[in-house]
Amino acid sequence: MSSVSVTVYGTPLSPAVSRVMVCLFEKEVDFKLAHVDMAKGQHKSPDFLKLQPFGQVPAFQDELTTVFESRAICRYICDKYPDKGNQMLMGRRDGGLLARTSVDQWLEAEGQSFNPPSSALVFQLVFAPMMGLKQDTASIEQNEAKLAKVLDVYDHRLGESKFLAGDDYTLADLAHLPNGHFLVTKDKGDLFTSRKNLGRWWEEISARPAWKKVVEMQNAPWA
Amino acid sequence: MSSVSVTVYGTPLSPAVSRVMVCLFEKEVDFKLAHVDMAKGQHKSPDFLKLQPFGQVPAFQDELTTVFESRAICRYICDKYPDKGNQMLMGRRDGGLLARTSVDQWLEAEGQSFNPPSSALVFQLVFAPMMGLKQDTASIEQNEAKLAKVLDVYDHRLGESKFLAGDDYTLADLAHLPNGHFLVTKDKGDLFTSRKNLGRWWEEISARPAWKKVVEMQNAPWA
Repeated sequence: MSSVSVTVYGTPLSPAVSRVMVCLFEKEVDFKLAHVDMAKGQHKSPDFLKLQPFGQVPAFQDELTTVFESRAICRYICDKYPDKGNQMLMGRRDGGLLARTSVDQWLEAEGQSFNPPSSALVFQLVFAPMMGLKQDTASIEQNEAKLAKVLDVYDHRLGESKFLAGDDYTLADLAHLPNGHFLVTKDKGDLFTSRKNLGRWWEEISARPAWKKVVEMQNAPWA
Repeated sequence: MSSVSVTVYGTPLSPAVSRVMVCLFEKEVDFKLAHVDMAKGQHKSPDFLKLQPFGQVPAFQDELTTVFESRAICRYICDKYPDKGNQMLMGRRDGGLLARTSVDQWLEAEGQSFNPPSSALVFQLVFAPMMGLKQDTASIEQNEAKLAKVLDVYDHRLGESKFLAGDDYTLADLAHLPNGHFLVTKDKGDLFTSRKNLGRWWEEISARPAWKKVVEMQNAPWA
């Protein structure tokens, strides 16, 4: 009998999908991945829209519970399965509200400051070529400059603490892996390595076994 | 003796600052507003950067705790003061994780789907004229079209439930007030009123006394 109650709908190539997958691997929560063929428009089908009203991947189901938005799904996974796998992802439980708030604020910084320019870059560098679209070099330059300013703040922070939210690896770090990885594979790794503390941090978080599993699935021929 | 432990740094004209203020008014948590003169670059001063490393408003202090990012600050306020004021903002406590997750996912939808196009519009319609910059009509058109698609999803959702996260007014609704208000004051109210359920929702959330207090402060001559 399978005890798998969790299904992630999407493809591991999607940054938002892989954000949820790496969280599930860290938490050691078994899940099924239900492939959504975006080229065929499956993410806009009526059945999919019942799970994810914006028609975006991932959709997420845990028995009768459906959740959307990758960062909300990650929070749900941590709170639903507090005793499984990595128990620090939303902050040490004995750290109380302050530990959780530190994760919250850096997870918001990821969503509001890191994600917009890095997603625009990943679109131009990874997905535009995949879709046969011409790269917009002005957009690449603009967003690289915006991202560099954000990363300067991160580098300063990571000179004060080992990880963004404090001494422990948390969702605040994990959320950066999908876009960060694509940037590194597209020769933009110097955005990280040219900054001492940020380079040290990136090396550590990208080497975690949970993330390596996701990359392996991204590189599988059926991804 | 004053028992005020909370300070918000910024100006009520900033959407992110007013998001935090309306949350504090809903929670009936007293606070001081410390004006930050952005025209003079006070948000980039070394002292301010200690509170808010990205040099953005608001910064937030509660005794020795500092928090940044408006949505993380709102979560902190709700969790720190569970028994004060409006106790539903992060979901009914007897609703458990599911109630909180529903707030989380719609708050993320606000941050990821509503905020980017609405902030771009508010910049063009409100702040560019204030700063003597020429309005970019192409940006206005593009972002209005993007926002309209998001609001179609909201209108559908608000046909199923009274508020975004469910039966209660929560942070997920509240977070929309700052940009929504500026759009309405700049003749873009039909984005809301042309959609039946969305119009009903906007009328209800924008009439709340906590939000009216914020608008009054925005309209004060010293704002």
